[in-house]
Amino acid sequence: MTVRPTLAVVGATGAVGTVLLRLLSQRADIWGDIRLIASPRSAGRKLAVRGEEVEVVALSEAAFDGVDIALFDVPDEVAAQWAPVAVARGAVVVDNSGAFRREPDVPLVVPEVNPYAARRRPRGIVASPNCTTLSMIVALGALHAEFGLRDLVASSYQAVSGAGRAGVETLRRQLSLVAGTELGTGPGDVRRAVGDDTGPFPEPVALNVVPWAGTPCDDGWSSEEMKVREETRRVLGLPRLPVAVTCVRVPVVTVHSVTVHARFENEVTVDRAREILATAPGVVLCDDPAAGEFPTPADVVGTDPTWVGRLRRALDDPTALELFVCGDNLRKGSALNTAQIAELVAGEPV
Amino acid sequence: MTVRPTLAVVGATGAVGTVLLRLLSQRADIWGDIRLIASPRSAGRKLAVRGEEVEVVALSEAAFDGVDIALFDVPDEVAAQWAPVAVARGAVVVDNSGAFRREPDVPLVVPEVNPYAARRRPRGIVASPNCTTLSMIVALGALHAEFGLRDLVASSYQAVSGAGRAGVETLRRQLSLVAGTELGTGPGDVRRAVGDDTGPFPEPVALNVVPWAGTPCDDGWSSEEMKVREETRRVLGLPRLPVAVTCVRVPVVTVHSVTVHARFENEVTVDRAREILATAPGVVLCDDPAAGEFPTPADVVGTDPTWVGRLRRALDDPTALELFVCGDNLRKGSALNTAQIAELVAGEPV
Repeated sequence: MTVRPTLAVVGATGAVGTVLLRLLSQRADIWGDIRLIASPRSAGRKLAVRGEEVEVVALSEAAFDGVDIALFDVPDEVAAQWAPVAVARGAVVVDNSGAFRREPDVPLVVPEVNPYAARRRPRGIVASPNCTTLSMIVALGALHAEFGLRDLVASSYQAVSGAGRAGVETLRRQLSLVAGTELGTGPGDVRRAVGDDTGPFPEPVALNVVPWAGTPCDDGWSSEEMKVREETRRVLGLPRLPVAVTCVRVPVVTVHSVTVHARFENEVTVDRAREILATAPGVVLCDDPAAGEFPTPADVVGTDPTWVGRLRRALDDPTALELFVCGDNLRKGSALNTAQIAELVAGEPV
Repeated sequence: MTVRPTLAVVGATGAVGTVLLRLLSQRADIWGDIRLIASPRSAGRKLAVRGEEVEVVALSEAAFDGVDIALFDVPDEVAAQWAPVAVARGAVVVDNSGAFRREPDVPLVVPEVNPYAARRRPRGIVASPNCTTLSMIVALGALHAEFGLRDLVASSYQAVSGAGRAGVETLRRQLSLVAGTELGTGPGDVRRAVGDDTGPFPEPVALNVVPWAGTPCDDGWSSEEMKVREETRRVLGLPRLPVAVTCVRVPVVTVHSVTVHARFENEVTVDRAREILATAPGVVLCDDPAAGEFPTPADVVGTDPTWVGRLRRALDDPTALELFVCGDNLRKGSALNTAQIAELVAGEPV
């Protein structure tokens, strides 16, 4: 594209859209117009991006006229309906929903790991992975490039903002009810205190952890766990990679954490893994537990990289590494990865 | 023992001791005298057990005279010093500290898994495992007895009461500071709000998860992780079992949760695993996620069993099972297991 391309942000008023506008204001500005699109009830609102107030326009076919790249941060069904409309009007769509992630003719892209995949997009759509996959995939991709990943066991510690604004409001409301009390020591006391309104979660999330995210799939798996498995395979280009994931919600506002047990093709050394992670783009190695250094959500929130700590070689398997990974689920986990994909597409040679 | 044996509780005023007195009041009463022992500064206090007020006596050699079984819930160094004293005075010691867990001539016992091990106690001491090991070992032992465990990957979600009263007070204080705020969305905002006093934890624990418990060991491992590995091997009688554990603290008051990826000698079926867990003593199977059924700390707190949910067979390995396990770290995780060991010893044929 020879002139500065026009970018549309669809879902500009949502939780991820809000972070995206902040990111677009901070990153190198390669864009011509930035058009903000949302549902008709948000039309007319003004939002700040790149230091200017921009008026939100209602989602419609005409809203995509002249748009080069459209970033979609909307529910699956809205994306499924409107992404093809945007493509028909000439835009490349970068979609952050689950609507297209499993389609074989829609590439699933993490710019640090498989940027080349974005070039082949027969339907004009590029998908961005789920936030839990994105929390660990950059670090995992760097290790895979060197060692060759053989299988993966992971457990998540997922923030409530992964369930949108309603998730954050639910935790805050519940915390107000339990703070300053002696709750958490007797059967059912937390549940009685927070009442039946557990928001988007199946159980109270304050003073609790909830081993469930998403909807039920076959054989007891959750949709979130299936997404992590399938998307990790797709992004790494390992369609038969064994992946066993358990997804658990924790009372953290922002930043997903993941414990990773990764087995590789051959013996690995921690020293070499350290070198790889210390120099991998998009990764910060924060790992000196004797000095109190390891990543936690409280430190990682609001930052772009994937943070890696607690790096050890398995004591009983010289081919396996353990790591604890943190990523801001609203930044690299969603808004940032879509912005990076858009920049990648915008930077393609004409 | 032909007459009702005399029991001593050493550390009666501590967090675990308090739960132990409640348990002794609820369980079948097989005891003659129950003597309460604590540090000199607690001597003279009266505590309720079996519906009676009992005066606490100061820890001394004479305090063990006439004691048949002594339960120790005290710091490692106190147990190391005083357990041999109690034995010399004729008591069998059941120790809940880490002082003797690794000693080859001190059996490490979980009554549902290896009760026979308590019979051979050349030093007169029986040790009870760490609370994180105990959160999962009963369920794991039942599956191992049928399928034969081949290796284990686990991640913990550990409650703050695992760090004693100071852990609980730290979480409560931090929650009072963060509740009702917009914290958890900006870099360092939680850390600034809770200040430098992080209590027994290396980082803020409210609105956070902390991938560290215990003290640093070799090669980046924590002492808590090494304990889980060594104790799981000892209790299951599998001295070379590959075990990879990551221990993480979460803002939950009571109940440790663990995600388990367990590989067995041969192919397993979920149906058979369900039968085993549904009938195993000390285990409750709570597993119908489509109906919202899985264990969480809020439901499990204050109960005795190990709760198991999210049971699935690994999608890529017919020999592996995934489970999510919850156990009350103050009950089965410490006080209950020691009470059970004491009952086991008391019930031995003369």
